[in-house]
Order: sequence, then C-alpha cells, then structure tokens
Amino acid sequence: MNIKSYSLQELENLAEKIRKRILEVVSAKGGHLSSTLGAVELIIGMHYVFDVEKDPFIFDVSHQAYAHKLLTDRWEKFDTLRQFGGISGYTKPSESKYDYFSAGHSSTSISIAVGAAKAIKLKKEDRTPVVLIGDGAMSAGMVYEALNELGYLKLPVVIILNDNEMSIGKPIGAISKYLTRLKAGKFYQNFKEKFKKILEAAPEDLKYTAKKVEEFFSVNGIWFEEMGLEYIGPIDGHNLEEIIETLKIAKELKKPVVVHAKTIKGKGYKQAEGYYEHWHGVGPFDLKTGEPLKKSSLSATKVYAQKLLEIAKKDERVVGVTAAMPSGTGMKELMQAFPHRFWDVGIAEQHAVTSMAPMAKEGFKPFVAIYSTFLQRGYDQIIHDVCLDNYPVRFAIDRAGIVGADGETHQGVFDIGYLRILPNITLFAPRDFETLKKAVEFAYNFDKGPSAFRYPRGAFVLPDGVFEASVFELGKGEILVQNDEIMLIAYGNGVGKAYKVHKELEKRGIKTGILDLRFVKPFDKELLRSLKAKKWYVISDNAKEGGIAEMLDSFANEENLNVKIESFEYPDKFIPHGSVDEVERFLGVDYLSIAEKIADENSV
Amino acid sequence: MNIKSYSLQELENLAEKIRKRILEVVSAKGGHLSSTLGAVELIIGMHYVFDVEKDPFIFDVSHQAYAHKLLTDRWEKFDTLRQFGGISGYTKPSESKYDYFSAGHSSTSISIAVGAAKAIKLKKEDRTPVVLIGDGAMSAGMVYEALNELGYLKLPVVIILNDNEMSIGKPIGAISKYLTRLKAGKFYQNFKEKFKKILEAAPEDLKYTAKKVEEFFSVNGIWFEEMGLEYIGPIDGHNLEEIIETLKIAKELKKPVVVHAKTIKGKGYKQAEGYYEHWHGVGPFDLKTGEPLKKSSLSATKVYAQKLLEIAKKDERVVGVTAAMPSGTGMKELMQAFPHRFWDVGIAEQHAVTSMAPMAKEGFKPFVAIYSTFLQRGYDQIIHDVCLDNYPVRFAIDRAGIVGADGETHQGVFDIGYLRILPNITLFAPRDFETLKKAVEFAYNFDKGPSAFRYPRGAFVLPDGVFEASVFELGKGEILVQNDEIMLIAYGNGVGKAYKVHKELEKRGIKTGILDLRFVKPFDKELLRSLKAKKWYVISDNAKEGGIAEMLDSFANEENLNVKIESFEYPDKFIPHGSVDEVERFLGVDYLSIAEKIADENSV
Repeated sequence: MNIKSYSLQELENLAEKIRKRILEVVSAKGGHLSSTLGAVELIIGMHYVFDVEKDPFIFDVSHQAYAHKLLTDRWEKFDTLRQFGGISGYTKPSESKYDYFSAGHSSTSISIAVGAAKAIKLKKEDRTPVVLIGDGAMSAGMVYEALNELGYLKLPVVIILNDNEMSIGKPIGAISKYLTRLKAGKFYQNFKEKFKKILEAAPEDLKYTAKKVEEFFSVNGIWFEEMGLEYIGPIDGHNLEEIIETLKIAKELKKPVVVHAKTIKGKGYKQAEGYYEHWHGVGPFDLKTGEPLKKSSLSATKVYAQKLLEIAKKDERVVGVTAAMPSGTGMKELMQAFPHRFWDVGIAEQHAVTSMAPMAKEGFKPFVAIYSTFLQRGYDQIIHDVCLDNYPVRFAIDRAGIVGADGETHQGVFDIGYLRILPNITLFAPRDFETLKKAVEFAYNFDKGPSAFRYPRGAFVLPDGVFEASVFELGKGEILVQNDEIMLIAYGNGVGKAYKVHKELEKRGIKTGILDLRFVKPFDKELLRSLKAKKWYVISDNAKEGGIAEMLDSFANEENLNVKIESFEYPDKFIPHGSVDEVERFLGVDYLSIAEKIADENSV
Repeated sequence: MNIKSYSLQELENLAEKIRKRILEVVSAKGGHLSSTLGAVELIIGMHYVFDVEKDPFIFDVSHQAYAHKLLTDRWEKFDTLRQFGGISGYTKPSESKYDYFSAGHSSTSISIAVGAAKAIKLKKEDRTPVVLIGDGAMSAGMVYEALNELGYLKLPVVIILNDNEMSIGKPIGAISKYLTRLKAGKFYQNFKEKFKKILEAAPEDLKYTAKKVEEFFSVNGIWFEEMGLEYIGPIDGHNLEEIIETLKIAKELKKPVVVHAKTIKGKGYKQAEGYYEHWHGVGPFDLKTGEPLKKSSLSATKVYAQKLLEIAKKDERVVGVTAAMPSGTGMKELMQAFPHRFWDVGIAEQHAVTSMAPMAKEGFKPFVAIYSTFLQRGYDQIIHDVCLDNYPVRFAIDRAGIVGADGETHQGVFDIGYLRILPNITLFAPRDFETLKKAVEFAYNFDKGPSAFRYPRGAFVLPDGVFEASVFELGKGEILVQNDEIMLIAYGNGVGKAYKVHKELEKRGIKTGILDLRFVKPFDKELLRSLKAKKWYVISDNAKEGGIAEMLDSFANEENLNVKIESFEYPDKFIPHGSVDEVERFLGVDYLSIAEKIADENSV
C-alpha cells in the first residue's frame, strides 16, 4: 500500500481502518492486542516517512507489527493470523519481503539495526534502518550493548521508543523510572538555549563553575545522549502530524537518534486501554463486552504458582524471580503475597538467573520461573554462576514443548538438550497437574544442587487421576503400565501422549507398556536395565537432537542392552505455529501417527 | 591477615610486599598481571574498610584478585598459582571461605551483589556487598540489567569501578568515552551546591526555567545517578588514604554507590605500566627485562587470523567481530588492516552475534570469533537471530577443549553439545594447522546457513604433515588409517590424540584405524555405514553428555549397525585447571589411559 501521497486526514482514516481490522481478526482468532493497537500511528508514520522497499524496518519482538503487516501485503490474509499455515504473529522474512527480520524474543532490534547500518555503510547505499522498540524491551542488557556500539560508531539509525509505560507486566527498574521522568514535560527540547541565558547572567565569582556546568551539560545531558545518541521527545505517539514531522527530522540527522513517543496501550479499544498484562495477548473474545469466548481452564502455570505459594507461606526461605512475565509464569501471585521475596527484574534473564545464585548460597530456596525459550538467554549464567559451584537454584521451566500460535521463536524444545549436558544439574518433569505439585515439592526439598523441571503451556495432555500422583524420588523413573515387549518411554507431557498412543494401540490389539522416566538427569538406569521389553519408543516434547533417545541409545550401547530404540521427539527443524495437534501432525509425531508407526512395526 | 590496625605507612609497605609477591610468582608461573597489579591498593582498601569475614567481597572476572588471595589465607600457597592441584587464578569458594563467589567470565559481579544484598536484607543482617569491577566489564549488558534493578531497589552495595582506561583490549563504546569524560576533573562532587548559587542569582524572567533546570538536575545528573546509584569520584586508585576515606563514606551511605577509581594497569612494574593487551595474561618471563622465557610458538588463533586476513584482502564482503578479545582471537590484525570491516564490540557477546546476522542478510560474509566458553553468552542470539532464519554467519570457536591454567570457568567443552541440537547449523573442525586453513576456506565459501568450526588454545596435538591436508566437503568424514576391526573415531583436536593412541597401540601390537569425522553436523552417515570395524572409540575434547558418541550411538541403533561404541570424551564434571596433559590424566582420558583401556579390551 503506497501511502506516501495520503493527506493527513486520509492517514487518520487509515489508522481507523487498520484498528478495525486488527480488532476484527484478533477478537476472532486471538493474538497480541494492546501493544499492536498502540503502535498503529507510529507504524503509519514509519511507512509514510521511510521507504519500506529499501529501508530496513525492524520491529522489536515484533508482536506490535500487525499494522505493518496490513500496510504491506497481508491485508486479506490477515484473518489467518497465527493459524496453522497462516500468517505469523511476528515479522518473518519467509512470509513477506517487507519483513526485514524475524523476532519473537525481545530487545534484539538495535543490534539488528547496527548490523544493517554497518552493511549499508559498506555498500555505500542511502538507506536508513528504523527501529520500533517498546519501553519494556529497554531493560534487557542486549539493548545496552547495542546502544553502546551505536553511540560510538554514530551510524544513522532511527529508534522509535514506543513508550506506553508498561512492558508486558508493569515495568520495573531504574530506566523505567527515568523514562517516566523524561515524560514530565517537553522541557528538554529548548532547554540548552535557555540555560545559556542563565549562565550569562551568573555573577562573576561563579563564572568558573558556570562554565563547568556548561561543559558538563554539553557532554552529558540525558541518558541517551550520554550513550552517544541524539534524543527527541517525548512526542504524542498517536498524533500523526507530530510523528511524521519528527521522523522526518530524525531521518535527516543521519545519526543515531532516539524518538521518544508516548502511546497508550490498547488505543482505540476502550476495554483494553491502559491495562497492563491482561490485554497483551488474548484468546478470542467478544468485541462488544471484551469477555473471552472461552472460559480459561486450569493451566500448569497456575498449578505451579498455587503450589509454590502454599509452600512460600510456610517457609520464608522460599524466594523467586521472573523476567518480565509475572502473569505468564504465575509469579504475580507470589509477588503480591510476598513483595520482598519475589521479584520481577524486567526482561533481564541473565541477571535473573545470576542474582538468585547468591541467594541460594545464603541459605534461601530460590525459584527462577522462565519460559523454556527465554531461558536460552541466561544459558551462560546457568553454567557459570549456578552449576559451576553447585548452588541449589530451582528452575521452573514454563512453556516447555510446542507452545502453539507463537511458533518458531517461542517453541520450548531445546531445554533438555542444552541443560542435560551441564554437570551438577538435576532435571525432572511432571506428567500432569498433580505430579506438577509433587515436582514443586521435590524442588523445594532438593538442596544438593541446581534443579530444573519443565511443564507445558496450558494443560497437560494427561488428565489427573489416570495414574496415581506419586512423589518424585531423585533419579527414579516409574513404570505406569508393565509390558515385556514394547515399552513407551515417556517424559513430562510426553506421558500423556504415550497414554493416548497406548490406548490407540490397545484398540488395534497391540499391548504396550508405559514408563515415565521422570528424571532425565540422573535417569533411572536400574529401572531401564530391568526391563524385559526390547523395543523402546521414546515420546517427549523436545528436539530429538541431543534429546532423550540419544541419551538412552548411549546407555543401551554402553551396557549392551540389545534394545531397539526409536525416537518420537521433534525433528531437527524450527517448528512453525499452529495448534499443538496440527503442528505435531505436520511433524508426524502426533499420537495417531506414532501409533500407526508402532503398529506397522509390530503387526503380526 | 588482619590489617585493620595498620598505619597508612604500614598499608603502603604491605602494597609493596604484595606487588613483589605477585611479580615473583607470576614471572615464574605465568598468570594475569597488569590488572592485578593495578588493583592492589583498592583491594587493601576493601580489606581495611570492610570485613572480609562477613561482607561479601565480589570480584568481577576475578583475575584481578591476587592481592585478595594474598591478604586472606594464600600467601604461602600462592606459588602454586594456576598449577594443577594448586590455587586457582580466580576466586573460588571451594578454595577459601574468603572467596564469596566463583568468576572467570566478566560482568556477573553486580548481579551477584544484588542477590547477596537481597539475602542480607531478608536476614536483617548488617553486611555490605562490595564489588570490584573493571571499566572493560561495563560494556556487557548483564551489568546494565543488574544496575537497573539495583538502582530501583536501592539496596546497599558498594561498587568500586576500577577504571584503568582499558579492558583486555582497548576499550570501545560510548560508555568508555563517557568514563573518560568523567575523569576530566573532580568537578562533580561539589557541583550541586555551587549550581544552587547560580540559580539564586538568575534574573526574574528566567526563574521558571531555572527551577526547571534544578528539577532536571535533581533527577538526572550523571549516567550512574540516572541509573539510580550514588556516584563518588573519580579518586586516585593508588592513593590508600583517598581510597580508605572514600570507601568509608560509601559504606556509610547504605545505598548503592559507585566509587570511581582511576588506576594504572601494571602499576609498580615499569615494563607493564600502561600497556594494553600484552601484559594482561602472561607466561613465565624474565623479571628484569620483561622478556618471555619461552618463545611463543605458532597457535591455531594465529593460523586462523592469517588465513582470514588473506581471504579478506581478496574479498571485501568478508567482515567480522570480536567481543573484547582482539588479540586472543587474532582479530586484531584484521581490525588493523580493515578498521571498517572488523569490529571489537567490547564484552558484548549477545550484540556481537546478532549484529552479524543482518550483515549476512545484506550479502556479507561475517566471521564471529569468540572463545567456546564465552559463546555460551550469545546462545539465544545464535538460535533466535542466526539459525532461525538460516543466515550464513561463521562462528570461529577459539579455545575449544581444555584451555589449561584458566580452569573451570574457561574450559570449552560444551559447544558441541549446545550447538549440534540447533536446526540449520553446520559444525566442523580441523585437526591441525593446515586443515584449519582449509576450514576457514570452507567457512568462507559456505553460504547455505550458519556454520561453526572449533580449534584449541595454542597448537593442535597433531603436527602438520602427518596426514595430508585435504579440503572440507560438506558432511564428509575421512578415513586416515583403515582398519577392519577397531576404529578410532576422532574429531578436531581429538584426531591428534587418536593418532597418539594409534601409535601407542601399534607398539603393543594392536592395530587401529583412524576416522576423522570432520563434520559433526551433518555427519558422514555413509562413511560410517561402510565401516567394517565394529568397535568404535570416540576421541574428542568435549563433554561426553550430549556429545559425539551419543550422536553415533543413536545413529548405530537407528540403523542396526551392531557396533560397540565407547566414548573417551570428557566426563560429566567441571574440569579443573592445570596443563592439558595433567588434567586429561586426572580425567582418565589422556592418550596413554585411552590406549591402556583399548588394549585391555582387545588383548588376545
């Protein structure tokens, strides 16, 4: 859509139309809402002032980029949003040439812009990277690393700071406070001129100090200027005239510049305006009332949080942290109940992990609740600051396995592979809500070193009560169904799938056993050795490479067990979005496909 | 050593004595030198003002903490520095109760202090964490994440910023420039008072602006104050009187406070004073002349850099980055030859990795040279920003395997495990200097997606010329010595060890073959399938968990190859410091132990 010839009125109408389309689709299909509604005018401004055909448009996290999708080539297709085979909820170069980069994790945008700017400079091209980044993303260290180089190299990059006074949760930290102060007025823009007049009027004996003050000012100014960037703002991020005017100036500067825009999250949809987490990402809802169309059902997150709250009430040594996901990880309840023992450190996984290690050293029992995919951001901290000296930090890994509509960037499939290679760590997983409670208990009691347990987004596949909820014993697996020929070896949420496979095969007259591994590290060698079954099928929701089957293959070879092992973990590819069922079917590891395969291999 | 009753003169003498001891030991044994010499007075000041029996002393990276080791319980033992079984070159709680935390990676100290301060507050104890951090460490995002929370919570932590105007390499970035400006004078300390007088004298019509200026000042000030921290400095970091006086004030503030101390790296040893990288870490040297006792021999780093330089001269699409290790990674030469195509981004592995992805997208051929252990810090960036969209970023993984005297924090043994689980990446390794050149060539030509090759610190075990230096072909392994019964399956620097095992076994009358895997991803299934040998011994310098043997076990099971596989990779523990030979002997995987074991298993 070429909007460069639009009048201001036409642009404003367009904003209206875009909002309508977003609301229409998101209310029907679910998706990110409040940030994307808040960014409509800013994105129109980007498209008006910059050239999407050549300038890199870089959206931080990119869940706010729906307007960009609608403005480029996805107006019609937009109603397939986040559906299997449909368009992604994030920018994605394989979906459109107008999406410069993939993003789903926060705070990568400025690094991308720096790289793009370096390339553009070397190619001697006239293109300007333009970044749209929310204030919440400013808490991650990666942003600072990128600003540090950008402010030094002075490459032309326009950074639009979309400041809606909130990240996914309530923003925390000194930088957040600082931004609040900046927004107090439009004072800074004409500040330096006026200040000069004051200096001129200063009495003689203070001239030296005055001069120093001036020097001080010229080199300092505000935080961004200290980082070596120009700063303009704050401006009204819903006023298209102001946005366009400012972006034009910013573009002409040919320097790194921060345009600080104030917006209202959820803008244009009354029910969502000004709310914190609730409207960040939503399922289908009634546009008129704002009520969700489906009642929210019990989730693993909720069960984890309730159990931990119960324990935390009894033992004040229990402390914990979340990285900008208070609701997403269920830690919000704990923060509310014990504001001095549970912290949201913002999007700062590195700091979240490391800061809990000394708490363990000091005798506390810290719980770090982070999504599987985001825990990747604290990997070195897990190794170097937690595992190395064997501190009993507990990792509650939420969103393990396939997460659904968020897709590639959010799938939690690598954690088993990247964690089980680390010395000292203990890894385990519950199979249903009831055993999740037992897992929290086990983690609470386990002080010998770091531990981590994983659980899926939403509900487990296995309903409670199918198998008795036994307690976790270090390194002990559990045979749920005995069989002397075929054993389904399952882990975590894989147990539920294994149970469905078991039932399906039963229908077809094939008997299978089910073994819940429970611990991946240390795993139950004794139990595995004792199995009479010589066919093992591994069922778990993690990447096959470096996964559980490989670990068992190695054990079997080492001990000459003479078993045949087949993996139904996830294949070696980034896994697209869609419902878990659709995606697993696509990968060939849904319960029916697995049952089919096992039946084929074991038909009489 | 209780120095609290010492006079200033006695403290100064002590500093002298400590420097002498450091020089004596480091010149004989090698170790970190310039940063540790520069920090002597600051550390004496810490021990004088704070109580090491109760206050957490937190040393960032901790290679500067030798004076602390000498002041606590390691004066005598200090001459075992970095020797196998001797004391560590870093702080280490298992070595002394006075070492609060392990560190070897940079920029973790403030997160540790925040965690300690939270614990102290909850325990209602009167203890103050005190941090010693260098200016180089300030470039890492993790520091910023920690400061952001610290400035928000206002917990009492004293941060001594040891500013010697250099990190390991020359410091870069906006923050480094900013610190340089701060050092211009002692202006800031009495700044606010004097500024008030100016305001009072302002003419009536400017009163409003004046008031605004005051407000602006009270909320802003300098960078650290904007982050919510008190700031004192700069002070002379070699003047014990000034240090002690300042630290006393800082301690009494009961707030987060940055004490900015200016020091000279290498202080007290003329030959080292003021130098950048050369004196950071050294081997044994002649104290009088400063000349190294051993001639430096050819290293993999050097071979890599020379080869890349040769290619970069011919193709201007070749670009690259290092994270504060210009000499350590050999990128310095490239930065000097092509300052606009090779960058040092400071200690900022996250940004280093991500910023190269758009360069690949824009048609360049980026090389990211980072040590194996530090690459852990950019893990999510490798996954989310490089592998996901399959950008051909080349990772040159230096210091793979056992690195020697640096020990636990620096061993490069996890990279195979954490990288091979990622979709799209290609992993390979050279076996000697000549094949390293071929590896660089392969990486240069390989544009299909991300790739990574690893090489050891110093020289390869395998001398050049033992086997012909063949080129790399995607996914192709190579049989170096054929044998139909026993095959040593080796990778990278493991080929040299396999060759020694092979020769040793030959002496004992046991014939073995050698297969150089060359690629771990994708690995050569065809070649492996074709092997007649049914005994495979895997020899490689990486962690066994998630390593190469497991991968082969899985392949063998899948394809019913009926082979017996034994791993001589590294066991599941953090690996201590010492020479590679000593450490491998300790782990039972030196070439003699391996040969012994194979001989036992294959004796007639």
